[in-house]
Amino acid sequence: MFLRSMKNPIGIFDSGLGGLTGYRALRKLLPGRTLLYFGDTARVPYGTRSREVIRRYSTQDANFLLSHGVCAILVACGTASSNALDLLEQTFSVPFVGVVAPAAEQAARVAENGNGRVLVLGTSATVATGAYERAIHAIDPKIQVRSAACPLFVPLVENGHTQKGDVAATAIAEEYLLPHADFRPDAVLLGCTHYPLLSEVLSAVLPGPVLISAGEASAKAMASLAAASLPPSDGSASDAFYTSDDPALFRREAARFLGAPPDAPVFHVDIEKY
Amino acid sequence: MFLRSMKNPIGIFDSGLGGLTGYRALRKLLPGRTLLYFGDTARVPYGTRSREVIRRYSTQDANFLLSHGVCAILVACGTASSNALDLLEQTFSVPFVGVVAPAAEQAARVAENGNGRVLVLGTSATVATGAYERAIHAIDPKIQVRSAACPLFVPLVENGHTQKGDVAATAIAEEYLLPHADFRPDAVLLGCTHYPLLSEVLSAVLPGPVLISAGEASAKAMASLAAASLPPSDGSASDAFYTSDDPALFRREAARFLGAPPDAPVFHVDIEKY
Repeated sequence: MFLRSMKNPIGIFDSGLGGLTGYRALRKLLPGRTLLYFGDTARVPYGTRSREVIRRYSTQDANFLLSHGVCAILVACGTASSNALDLLEQTFSVPFVGVVAPAAEQAARVAENGNGRVLVLGTSATVATGAYERAIHAIDPKIQVRSAACPLFVPLVENGHTQKGDVAATAIAEEYLLPHADFRPDAVLLGCTHYPLLSEVLSAVLPGPVLISAGEASAKAMASLAAASLPPSDGSASDAFYTSDDPALFRREAARFLGAPPDAPVFHVDIEKY
Repeated sequence: MFLRSMKNPIGIFDSGLGGLTGYRALRKLLPGRTLLYFGDTARVPYGTRSREVIRRYSTQDANFLLSHGVCAILVACGTASSNALDLLEQTFSVPFVGVVAPAAEQAARVAENGNGRVLVLGTSATVATGAYERAIHAIDPKIQVRSAACPLFVPLVENGHTQKGDVAATAIAEEYLLPHADFRPDAVLLGCTHYPLLSEVLSAVLPGPVLISAGEASAKAMASLAAASLPPSDGSASDAFYTSDDPALFRREAARFLGAPPDAPVFHVDIEKY
């Protein structure tokens, strides 16, 4: 409670490292606010698991961040946002920002200025919920939405298959995207925070549409919330990263998402205890 | 304890579904013995996690099976066998059979009848231990061994990319195997129980070597142990499957490994409690 009353840090969690795309964006938007990031690398990926397991893991993740005194939580994970945000909001009293609504809003804006078509890419668990489609239709029911489950994108990103021209990543992207080429989307909503790392591969396979990063969109929404209604920070950021697996592994892999090794300490968390 | 004294079932565990290749082989070898299979599908994969996490998860898996009265345990997972078998043997009193020693023995036999060369394929965590290499050299130090970490094979198999000619699977197999083509191995040891499903892809990329299934090799070793020193079964098999994620998901996905849907009930287990 001391931490919380002093600094009012914002918590961010993801199944693993993908949420770092949201962290990175929020870090720039809120220079004076401490950010605490938890990546559940001992249980990543979430996107191929059942809704019940995703809800249990997400509750533990939020519970851990709250034990460190955060005043709001960015759910920087498409799978957790689409499967567990309602449960988190019912269970805990701090405000949550997920990736679905902010990214849906950006995509709807692009579609309304184009031909009214959005292609949503997400994990199997995300696409199964239809959450992005519902969120886009809540903004504008005339927008046509198609969704494609992309279960191999997370493992590809985690194993570094992200360069333009990568044969395996291109073959898998073609399998997922080309059935929707004739749909000619105005926007491709990257509904999982890992996917921005595949931007070059995706643009090569399906040139034209605007790519929307769910992580960046949610970071902007969190920055607005902070400006509007979060308790003040103390003006200095003293971030920390937490991982359910090995901190050294996290530090090494995080560089790929951050553009450089993390500029803050990385601690281990036994997440099963939360 | 009632179950145990009545039937003396054998337990099998894996990080997920790959161990079903071992289950399937053991099911044929021991028709009168009950087999209890646990697949940790809520925490799969193990092969990209740290040694410490793998040892903790493996201990919980064994503990769960022992709570159901098994008299021996087949560790049908290359990652768990190479990272945690010593800990399991120290912690528990029942006999364990892992995949490393039996597969190493088969590979050594093939190599001794050829040019003395074995290529080991495994997950990152398995290859990092050097366990297969040590096991082969313990049998015959003259055998040349090379190892290749294949982190994307498990996600490929789990997502059905196993057919000969699959572009993504072939591209990834070429990346992992072709650097070792000039080594001309007599045997390719499939050191992860998922990999036999990729046999056709692997043989197309690197034709020639004998493919050795760690799951099948370990099943033979367990059958020998049962004949030599396990307490008797009651002559009838009444198998059960356990999963840490959704039983319906397990049932659907297991068919790919078993050739047909599981012919036994599938139950949910909250593995974090063990």
